[in-house]
Amino acid sequence: MNPQGRIICGLQPVREAIRKHGAQLSRVVVEAAPERQAPQLEALARFARDQGAPVERIARLELDRMARGVRHQGAIAFAPGLRVVKLDDVVLGDRALVVALDEVQDPQNFGAVIRSAVAMGATAIVWPEHSSAPLSPTTFRASAGAVEHATLCRVASLPHALEELRARGVTAVGLDMTGDVAIDRIDLAKPVAIVVGAEGKGLRRTVKRSCDAIARLPMPGPVASLNASVAVAMALYEAVRQRGER
Amino acid sequence: MNPQGRIICGLQPVREAIRKHGAQLSRVVVEAAPERQAPQLEALARFARDQGAPVERIARLELDRMARGVRHQGAIAFAPGLRVVKLDDVVLGDRALVVALDEVQDPQNFGAVIRSAVAMGATAIVWPEHSSAPLSPTTFRASAGAVEHATLCRVASLPHALEELRARGVTAVGLDMTGDVAIDRIDLAKPVAIVVGAEGKGLRRTVKRSCDAIARLPMPGPVASLNASVAVAMALYEAVRQRGER
Repeated sequence: MNPQGRIICGLQPVREAIRKHGAQLSRVVVEAAPERQAPQLEALARFARDQGAPVERIARLELDRMARGVRHQGAIAFAPGLRVVKLDDVVLGDRALVVALDEVQDPQNFGAVIRSAVAMGATAIVWPEHSSAPLSPTTFRASAGAVEHATLCRVASLPHALEELRARGVTAVGLDMTGDVAIDRIDLAKPVAIVVGAEGKGLRRTVKRSCDAIARLPMPGPVASLNASVAVAMALYEAVRQRGER
Repeated sequence: MNPQGRIICGLQPVREAIRKHGAQLSRVVVEAAPERQAPQLEALARFARDQGAPVERIARLELDRMARGVRHQGAIAFAPGLRVVKLDDVVLGDRALVVALDEVQDPQNFGAVIRSAVAMGATAIVWPEHSSAPLSPTTFRASAGAVEHATLCRVASLPHALEELRARGVTAVGLDMTGDVAIDRIDLAKPVAIVVGAEGKGLRRTVKRSCDAIARLPMPGPVASLNASVAVAMALYEAVRQRGER
């Protein structure tokens, strides 16, 4: 990691980082003299200062160098490393709503899933360390900053993690196009983990076997394929709906 | 447009183009001698041939030149132009489920919304010609090829289009974080149009005023922000659920 901390690029990700970490950010860097009037950058700099984070103005070229190819929109923050917790340490109440990702390797997709999961109030996001996308600036950015608010749980083995969750009263529901039960026929009001696979590949066999049920999302259209983050969001929506949350 | 037709880049978009257009494709171009074994490219070339589309193998550099920066994964197709229909010509039965986009300017988001809409069986996708992303190769690609199966309807004015839809018995339901009704409290089993705005901006005032109801999606999490395609998918899921489709 960069000695100044984890690099976060882009307006919304930086805004969420300020909201979460405030004065703990080692710095917030905003483009000096942007080509166009940039009221959003001004507002961001003001917000950072108000929250006690040190703000610096630097030239675009220098920002480009820092961002290393990640789209930054004139804003970068240096934040403390993300805390990744052990599954043991995740509090699982009777409203537990876990998202488990099976080998999602695309950092954009990983970030998009985190965003959907956080917005829908997921308790934790669990993924296996092997063959998964890392927590990179691309992932932070694709999450639109939601990653700052997520409970992140990297595990050695997803099937083992699902076993552990089951032992703690959490039912594992895998999502698969060929699932034998429609999602709204499954009781998602009790503690559940929604398990999704990578796009194109779906759930591995070992992971499917570790699920208590394999659910099908309705896809009445001519193309039976949803983005992973969309599939997660639909399943979480159904859970939230069943729980009567609005 | 390219004299050979509309350019479609990427494995899944090309696959959907073959599925939809078959022998009407002027050609399918597949990378010759790819670095790694590429069984997916072989399968794609075979599928194209089986469907009567002319297949050509060319060098990676030439593919890069054709794709002009769009990620192509070794596969490009030249397809007939997308047919954009008039709202008048869209058949709106008693199961009509229209998606209307208010000035979505990001081609990735536009494509992602099309993908969700098609998978969920939307009757048509309506957007205003002004201030919207064009139907570009980036959009085709972001839709994962779903655009080939969509009924596309570009209109001069979105408020007018919503008026016209209303006159034909379709209720317009806008999505907005500040909406006064929870989405599952709205009757989405009757003919409806789901109206979404651009990320960050939301629905314009004039568009909001043209809606019969403004619905709120549940977002119990600490970040009240969803990707536009995710929001569309959740609303369509709720409609499909109310209609008893599985």
